[in-house]
Amino acid sequence: MAFKFFKKKTENIIPGRVSTGKEELFCYGFDASSAEGAPSAVVRPVSTEEVSEVAAFAFNTDTPIVPRGAGTGMTGGAVPLKGAVILSLEGMNRIIDIDAKNMVAIVEPGVINSHLQERLEDVDLFYPPDPASMKFCTLGGNVAENAGGPRAIKYGVTKDYVLGLETVLPDGRVLMTGGRTFKGVVGYDLTRLLVGSEGTLGIITKIFLKVLPMPEATVTLLCTYSHIEDAAQTVSKITSSSIIPRTLEFMDHESIMAVENYKSFGLPVNAEALLLIEVDGQHSAVSEEAEKIASICTSFNGNVSIAEDMFSKQRIWEARRAVSPALYHIRPTKINEDIVVPRGRIPEMLRAIREIAEKNKLIIANFGHAGDGNIHVNIMTDKNDVEEYGRAKDSVKDIFEATLKLNGTISGEHGVGLSKKQFVGMELSDVSIEIMKKIKNVFDPKGILNPGKIFPD
Amino acid sequence: MAFKFFKKKTENIIPGRVSTGKEELFCYGFDASSAEGAPSAVVRPVSTEEVSEVAAFAFNTDTPIVPRGAGTGMTGGAVPLKGAVILSLEGMNRIIDIDAKNMVAIVEPGVINSHLQERLEDVDLFYPPDPASMKFCTLGGNVAENAGGPRAIKYGVTKDYVLGLETVLPDGRVLMTGGRTFKGVVGYDLTRLLVGSEGTLGIITKIFLKVLPMPEATVTLLCTYSHIEDAAQTVSKITSSSIIPRTLEFMDHESIMAVENYKSFGLPVNAEALLLIEVDGQHSAVSEEAEKIASICTSFNGNVSIAEDMFSKQRIWEARRAVSPALYHIRPTKINEDIVVPRGRIPEMLRAIREIAEKNKLIIANFGHAGDGNIHVNIMTDKNDVEEYGRAKDSVKDIFEATLKLNGTISGEHGVGLSKKQFVGMELSDVSIEIMKKIKNVFDPKGILNPGKIFPD
Repeated sequence: MAFKFFKKKTENIIPGRVSTGKEELFCYGFDASSAEGAPSAVVRPVSTEEVSEVAAFAFNTDTPIVPRGAGTGMTGGAVPLKGAVILSLEGMNRIIDIDAKNMVAIVEPGVINSHLQERLEDVDLFYPPDPASMKFCTLGGNVAENAGGPRAIKYGVTKDYVLGLETVLPDGRVLMTGGRTFKGVVGYDLTRLLVGSEGTLGIITKIFLKVLPMPEATVTLLCTYSHIEDAAQTVSKITSSSIIPRTLEFMDHESIMAVENYKSFGLPVNAEALLLIEVDGQHSAVSEEAEKIASICTSFNGNVSIAEDMFSKQRIWEARRAVSPALYHIRPTKINEDIVVPRGRIPEMLRAIREIAEKNKLIIANFGHAGDGNIHVNIMTDKNDVEEYGRAKDSVKDIFEATLKLNGTISGEHGVGLSKKQFVGMELSDVSIEIMKKIKNVFDPKGILNPGKIFPD
Repeated sequence: MAFKFFKKKTENIIPGRVSTGKEELFCYGFDASSAEGAPSAVVRPVSTEEVSEVAAFAFNTDTPIVPRGAGTGMTGGAVPLKGAVILSLEGMNRIIDIDAKNMVAIVEPGVINSHLQERLEDVDLFYPPDPASMKFCTLGGNVAENAGGPRAIKYGVTKDYVLGLETVLPDGRVLMTGGRTFKGVVGYDLTRLLVGSEGTLGIITKIFLKVLPMPEATVTLLCTYSHIEDAAQTVSKITSSSIIPRTLEFMDHESIMAVENYKSFGLPVNAEALLLIEVDGQHSAVSEEAEKIASICTSFNGNVSIAEDMFSKQRIWEARRAVSPALYHIRPTKINEDIVVPRGRIPEMLRAIREIAEKNKLIIANFGHAGDGNIHVNIMTDKNDVEEYGRAKDSVKDIFEATLKLNGTISGEHGVGLSKKQFVGMELSDVSIEIMKKIKNVFDPKGILNPGKIFPD
């Protein structure tokens, strides 16, 4: 009854933008994780005022709502539980301002990451965070998950670029945090509390982003290895040198094979590991750094090639970004974790993963951001092979135990959402969870905003 | 009665490290602001366990406690109100570990900033945040205030380097947040909530810091101008180029004069403005960037010199760091604000300050971090000249109004503490303050930790 009332009222607030059609509801029940939900409606506001009115009304009627960007999240953050209403921000997709003088971009949450990057490139500006899904994912989603990407090793993650936020609280009030300045210490840092809060503290309606000048030049190198240890040593040597590469990505043997089976890029299928390294900056610096890096790779028996032109660069990156979909050629179901260990401990972590794979007779492909210790661990299996799928799911806990033993964290970029909720207590202490739940209660005393996420019940 | 009980108990917990001598209490009643307090005792724990026990006992006896580093804060953050007990972390001053392989330093809160920098330099590592007081201030204090410094333009501030914290809560329980990884998104970002919380949410007992490889080379340039507009244009041109300087500091005419009167560095006393610019990185890049920057300076009528050697570099920096004490040669009392505006708006802000100075017949010296829009605004006056001092205090509000009008913030580095408490409502909305107070209440339900700071009563 309450829901019908909600639907009717919301249709008055934003006529024509409330959907309850079955097919539509079905589509909005998913994100890129394996979780599924069934929303009772999808609501598409196009302004902060509309978000505010809908939120206020949801608050007054105890209607759970779930903010959503493009639904590319990996952990069920945007999947509605208990028939929650999806509040889709896709219609709030304006780039409001690009202020080149002060190096600030102001955007609505529904702007696609790569759209902003392209617009900035037109005026020689640069927004570094480049999650793999950047051609589809929204900046609001990036803020909610504190998205990273290959460029994090040099440039950091979304949180390092959010100067301020306009957020609608679950009760409909509008909260402005931070602003347009690069520094500020007035009061508590609510901005950085909201970034990465996975849509559980507020609904982001405006984002103030710091942007950088476009680097003058970029050089891309590809290096393949017969032995994974050599790749690990290369990573170690580069990261302790005075060079900070723009990206330092790796792919293991399984990933390389998967990519070559998917589409022939000419990667050596018997290589045990591959590194994709980029440096950027002033022309002369970049040439010098690229030479030094090539030299380091070669000293550890790497087979280096430097991308000659834009086409070659794009091809190398296409291969790297193809890993995620390519893995489905191995097995049709993927359990996808994104653990982080202190970067010097990557070799130990990869060994631990290999042992887990062998013990459980599973195929596990690893790739990711070697430069900051962030490994995407992909257990390839088949949901329909109940026995194998069971082993695959059980091995997640082993992987997390191995991670935490190496002083790591169970999620570097994907967040907790639904998928990792049950494991949160392995990493966070009771005190920590208690404080976080109390903070959640400060923002959302009725528990209507994206309920059931992050914290174990 | 309760306090005597507290003192007795604390003397049992940490015998010989509880002081109530008059002279000692007097010294611990100050920081570097103009606020004065009168603590009832000074307690000096040397371990997390001791901090925890003392905090638990304070909680149980409703005894207010104030954490303190070196007392170099500018806004009264460590000044005890209502006879609070000072909990000095100066005895927790060990550098626990420098993990070069994983680029993490683990330190106790009482470690002096420059001591860490020197130890890291010995192993070719680099911790960028360099507040002016770095030879005296503690890392715990830096965390509490989210300290910045000249290198922030390229390297960011303390918050960008804190990977994890061990914090003792006001009730004595120990909270671990973050860790040793460069990325992590499990739960809310309590680490970055604690950084900059000015000792009001918890007592920091261990800090996990990210460190960087030492840049290969640094070049320092000094550039003086007859017209401040030319300096402003230079800043604008450099910051929109692809060069990101390591520092981009400025000093106005008053500051230059004060420094030359204090100690003769050979700065041109009739210059209207001075820029101190540094670039760092690979040798070849740095030479090229320094040339480009020198060229930009000259194109705007600047008189450039490049520091030839380490001695010259140190001398230039000595002059820059001498500004703060040198200003006392103008007048004996300083009202010191550290506002930030979007950096393209520095010229407007400086004009607004000049108008305020003229209107109120005051001497105002400005210097600071042009690269990130952070101006240290120093109203030089004399407490004993009651009338002038009154005008000086009144002009603070005008300065803040002008700042906020330009989308700025009333504090970039120094925090709110006591000094800016009354002005917080000019910048933060009621909703914002309400949320922050509720968060404070989550951590400190009894209000015993550094009461009376940040928020208007």
